[in-house]
Amino acid sequence: MFYITHDDVEDLALGSYVLGTGGGGDSSLAKIMLREAIKEHGPVQVVDASDLDPDGLLLPIAVIGAGVGFEEKLLNGGEAEQALHTLEKYMGRKGVAIFPIEVGGVNTLFPLVVAAKLGLPCVDADSMRRAFPRLELTVLTLAGIPSSPAVLVDAKSNAVLLEPIDNAAAETLARATVVAMGMFAVMSAYPITAQQCVDHGILKSLSYALELGRRVSAIQEGKPDAYQQLLEYADAEIIFSGKVVDIERRVTGGWTKGTVTLEHLTDPDRTMRVDIQNENLIAFEDGEAKVMTPDLITFLDIETATPMTTESLSYGQRLNVIGMPAYSAWRTPAGVELAGPRTFGYDIDYVAFGGTK
Amino acid sequence: MFYITHDDVEDLALGSYVLGTGGGGDSSLAKIMLREAIKEHGPVQVVDASDLDPDGLLLPIAVIGAGVGFEEKLLNGGEAEQALHTLEKYMGRKGVAIFPIEVGGVNTLFPLVVAAKLGLPCVDADSMRRAFPRLELTVLTLAGIPSSPAVLVDAKSNAVLLEPIDNAAAETLARATVVAMGMFAVMSAYPITAQQCVDHGILKSLSYALELGRRVSAIQEGKPDAYQQLLEYADAEIIFSGKVVDIERRVTGGWTKGTVTLEHLTDPDRTMRVDIQNENLIAFEDGEAKVMTPDLITFLDIETATPMTTESLSYGQRLNVIGMPAYSAWRTPAGVELAGPRTFGYDIDYVAFGGTK
Repeated sequence: MFYITHDDVEDLALGSYVLGTGGGGDSSLAKIMLREAIKEHGPVQVVDASDLDPDGLLLPIAVIGAGVGFEEKLLNGGEAEQALHTLEKYMGRKGVAIFPIEVGGVNTLFPLVVAAKLGLPCVDADSMRRAFPRLELTVLTLAGIPSSPAVLVDAKSNAVLLEPIDNAAAETLARATVVAMGMFAVMSAYPITAQQCVDHGILKSLSYALELGRRVSAIQEGKPDAYQQLLEYADAEIIFSGKVVDIERRVTGGWTKGTVTLEHLTDPDRTMRVDIQNENLIAFEDGEAKVMTPDLITFLDIETATPMTTESLSYGQRLNVIGMPAYSAWRTPAGVELAGPRTFGYDIDYVAFGGTK
Repeated sequence: MFYITHDDVEDLALGSYVLGTGGGGDSSLAKIMLREAIKEHGPVQVVDASDLDPDGLLLPIAVIGAGVGFEEKLLNGGEAEQALHTLEKYMGRKGVAIFPIEVGGVNTLFPLVVAAKLGLPCVDADSMRRAFPRLELTVLTLAGIPSSPAVLVDAKSNAVLLEPIDNAAAETLARATVVAMGMFAVMSAYPITAQQCVDHGILKSLSYALELGRRVSAIQEGKPDAYQQLLEYADAEIIFSGKVVDIERRVTGGWTKGTVTLEHLTDPDRTMRVDIQNENLIAFEDGEAKVMTPDLITFLDIETATPMTTESLSYGQRLNVIGMPAYSAWRTPAGVELAGPRTFGYDIDYVAFGGTK
């Protein structure tokens, strides 16, 4: 058990961007919200699922939308509470802790804001340990756990509760709902017990994001060996160092899709193209896939060590492209079948990147 | 209190088409379903809301989709039960009777099928007394009664529960859900008590549809004065007798939209154009609106007195265009504001058609 304090917020946000892999939204406003929530309610208690009543209901929370941050869509501040109360009413029981569905992007920080406001602890776990663009892409789906009942609430206080037949249908219905809600909603999905979290969740995800962020922060502070310590912790590698020469982005059907092209800093014959569907999906060097989903591709600005979202990229920017192995369950055959290149329409066999940590 | 027997089904279907005003779907399969349900479970009890416990919950039911009948989309037979059980679970109480949301088209017969299967009476009332293409177009909306919680279920057994902030938002979210569900779903919306039905519903709607159907049937049987007796009962008029010279239909965004053009049988200088959005919306003669929503426009085939849906129209067909005043609440300023021409994008002031019965 530990507490997220005011001083952790910046590091956690840095880690959230790394795990956001280009997507997951801009955490700027989530940072402000979390700092305000801590100021008002005190540090947020983060607990292990194993410390909770095994039968206790965890209350999952995330935002869902078209790769936007909070800035573009006003929150009324009550969406999460409304979503969780709707879920609790429907399930006929109360929750004991907040469960982050997706530790990556705004969804790393947002559950902590909700936990602070509702006076509940937040579980140090999630179901992705990165951002993913579809709600059925969770290790809970791999474990056969339904995402339903799921609840979406928009800033106008419209609520929609989904009871789909499977998690793929949940994604279809949730996406249609999000589009009708104006591309942004707060979502609760995958209500699980603490024991289900222990058995099937990804444990220590928040700690992992926080430690990643601390190591990025150390690079930014110019500490010796800091880059190496980041890469070692994440079992990661710099796969390309280049300059952005082309960016193509469009928002379509509730997703941000696009490509980013980089030219190598020292060898102009080498180019890297990264395909995006909300998150960075596949990094191709000269046509060959070097890192691919479910493994992570993150851009770090070379000068500032700032982890970049798709929206924050700009022409001429100099970036290190970091490859990181996904959480182990993603690298199994079932994990690859659910979240590998073919899920996103690529006729490419998955090749695991780097280590197996 | 009365019973819908096997012998009533055909007449009720004829009445349902008249109130379908070109939309509301093809009742053919609903007829078969109702006959089978009556064969298995016996005649369906139809009761007045005033005969029920005033606090008793009515279970509203309808199908929602893009102007299609059951034939195009297979029902699994359990959608209505699943929708109503989801509603009852969420509301924490059981219903006492089935409530037809829309007496018009398939939604006239379908609630009776559900009532027979579930062993519940069906209330002789509805909230439209015609078919309408948007779920907020009900006299319950006029009375300030929310359509929520509303539940949609598709043939795969996916369920979606809506808790929107108002009935217009319910329509937006339901329409997006229906599209994601493949254009067809069973819906429960406007859960009301028997007393709310007495106070704000349209009473005797099923009886009205049945009597309309019996009078159409009498025309088909060649009984003397039968046409006049139909028109008198509905306070209706034949506003045009013509031949179909043009039909344009398209399915877009969950709706069937189009126009039908008729040339007068005896005066080729006279033409009538009827604009459609699922239902017949406005009948223009030589550019002038003669009958407009919320009043009813129904086509009766001249040779066979068959009431026509938009889908069953064909080139060269000879039709009487029947104008019928809508239920009185629709003809008030509030009714016209909700369901008049401007709702459908026409810059036309409503002019009430015919009588005020």
